[in-house]
Amino acid sequence: MKFTKMQGIGNDYIYINCFEEKVQNPSELSIKLSDRHFGIGSDGIILIEPSDKADCRMDIYNADGSQAMMCGNGIRCVGKYVYERGIVKKDVLKVDTMSGVKTLYLDIEDGKVVSVTVDMGSPEFQTEKIPVTYPKDRMIGEPVVFGEAEYSVTCVSMGNPHCVLFVDDVNQVEIEKVGPMLECDGIFPHRANIEFIQVLSAEEVNMRVWERGSGETWACGTGACAAAVACAANHKTGRSVTVHLRGGDLHIKWDDKTDKVFMRGPAEFVFDGMMNV
Amino acid sequence: MKFTKMQGIGNDYIYINCFEEKVQNPSELSIKLSDRHFGIGSDGIILIEPSDKADCRMDIYNADGSQAMMCGNGIRCVGKYVYERGIVKKDVLKVDTMSGVKTLYLDIEDGKVVSVTVDMGSPEFQTEKIPVTYPKDRMIGEPVVFGEAEYSVTCVSMGNPHCVLFVDDVNQVEIEKVGPMLECDGIFPHRANIEFIQVLSAEEVNMRVWERGSGETWACGTGACAAAVACAANHKTGRSVTVHLRGGDLHIKWDDKTDKVFMRGPAEFVFDGMMNV
Repeated sequence: MKFTKMQGIGNDYIYINCFEEKVQNPSELSIKLSDRHFGIGSDGIILIEPSDKADCRMDIYNADGSQAMMCGNGIRCVGKYVYERGIVKKDVLKVDTMSGVKTLYLDIEDGKVVSVTVDMGSPEFQTEKIPVTYPKDRMIGEPVVFGEAEYSVTCVSMGNPHCVLFVDDVNQVEIEKVGPMLECDGIFPHRANIEFIQVLSAEEVNMRVWERGSGETWACGTGACAAAVACAANHKTGRSVTVHLRGGDLHIKWDDKTDKVFMRGPAEFVFDGMMNV
Repeated sequence: MKFTKMQGIGNDYIYINCFEEKVQNPSELSIKLSDRHFGIGSDGIILIEPSDKADCRMDIYNADGSQAMMCGNGIRCVGKYVYERGIVKKDVLKVDTMSGVKTLYLDIEDGKVVSVTVDMGSPEFQTEKIPVTYPKDRMIGEPVVFGEAEYSVTCVSMGNPHCVLFVDDVNQVEIEKVGPMLECDGIFPHRANIEFIQVLSAEEVNMRVWERGSGETWACGTGACAAAVACAANHKTGRSVTVHLRGGDLHIKWDDKTDKVFMRGPAEFVFDGMMNV
C-alpha cells in the first residue's frame, strides 16, 4: 500500500489516497500503522476519498482506532495533498467530513500550496450548548476557583468544549497537574479542552493546550480558534491573532460580519512510503 | 533520498543504503529524520556502507545526533537488509562497527532471514573494568542498599556497564522511581544500565530495562545479554535463556567453551520510503 506522511505544526497523520488504494478495516489499520516503534508512527490515518457532496471526503482514524469528527491540522494537509497531487486543481476546495462540508482556501505560489485557510464555523458561547454548568448564559472572563487558585475563565465551543484561561507565562504552567484537574472538573459534563493563554500584544499570544483524552499536545486547531475568540471577547486582543503553539503558528481571524472563524496555517509533506499491510 | 524503516523487538531505526545513497551530515540528518512528529520518526539512523575490513560497515547515529558504538537490535536488521536486498549473499556475515568487526549468523528460510544470531563477545566481571566502585574483584549477587531497599546485585559489562537485579515481578517495579536512582548511584562512575529480572524457569526470564541516558526502553540487546549472564552466574538459570522484553523475545546463549555470548532475535522490515532531504 502506498501512503504519504504529512504534518501540520507537528500534528502528523498517514494520508492514504483512496481514489487509488482500497482500505478494508481502517480502524485496525490505524492502530497498526500509527504505532511509533512497530509501525509507521503517527497521530492516526486520514483517508482521502471521492465524495458526491464535495470535491473530496476525509475520514480520520485516531491512533487508538477511534474515529474523529474533524481535525483542523489534518484538513489543511488534505488540501495540499489533493491540489499538489492533481486530484482537485481548485484553490477553493470543499471537503466533506464527519462534521459536515468544510471550505478550504489554498494559498498557492509557483504551483505549491504554502498555507491553507479553513472556515472553522462560528463559535458557540451558550453555556448549556458548550456544555458547561454555570448559572449564566455565557461564561466570559468569569472568576472560578479550581484547586487552590482563582482563574479568569472563558468557555466556548468550536464543535467541542474549550475552557480558556489567561496566564502570565505559559512556560510556568504546571500543565500535567492543572490540565487533568480542569479537564475533569464537575462543571464540564463532557470534560473540556483547556487552553492556557499568555497575551503578548493585540495581535499575538502564546498558547499551551491540554487536550481532552490526550493530555498536552503540540497543536490543537479548534483550541487555537477558541483561544483567539476568547481573547477578542475579553478585549485582550483584536479579532486577528497569531497563536504561537508548541508545534508552530496558526493565524486566526474571527470575522465580524459573518461571525465565522478562519484558521490559516501550514501543511507539509514529510515523505512517501510503501508498505505491505 | 531512499530509506528503509526496520525494527528489532521495537528498537526502530532508519536504514540508509550507502552503497547507493550519499549522506553529507549524518548527525544533523539523524536529528531531523528521527523526530517522531516532524520527521520520519525513529530511535536513530543506521548507515550501511562498504568496508575494506568486513562484508559491510554500520554507522549508528542516535536520535540526538550522537554516535553509538554498537546496537544488537540494529545489527540484526543490517544482516537482514544486506542479505535480502542482495548486497551480501552470505549466511555468515562480518559487519564492521565502531566497536570492532562483529559476526552475524543468519537463519534463512525460503530466501528470507527469519532470525539473526550475533556474537556479542565475552562478558567482563572485573569491577574496575565495568566500572563499579566495590571492595571486591567481582560483584555477583552482592547485597546492596539503594534508597530504602536491599537488592541482590550483579554487575557486568557487555562493552557498557550493566547492573542486574532480581525481583519477584517485573510489572510491580516502580521503574521511573528506582531506575534513575540506581543509574546515577555513586558506585557507578560512568552510570549504568539497570536490568530488573524475574526468573520464570531455568530457561526463561522476564526483563525490564532502564537504559543509561534514555530511561525505560522496550528492548536492550546488551542488557538482555548481561541479564542472561548474571542469571547463569547466580545459578538462577542455565546458560541458554529466553529473555522476554517488553518489545519481544531474545534468546541468549553464553557459550561455556569460548566464554562468548550469542544473541538470537528477529529483524523486520516495516516500510520503504522516499524523502527530500
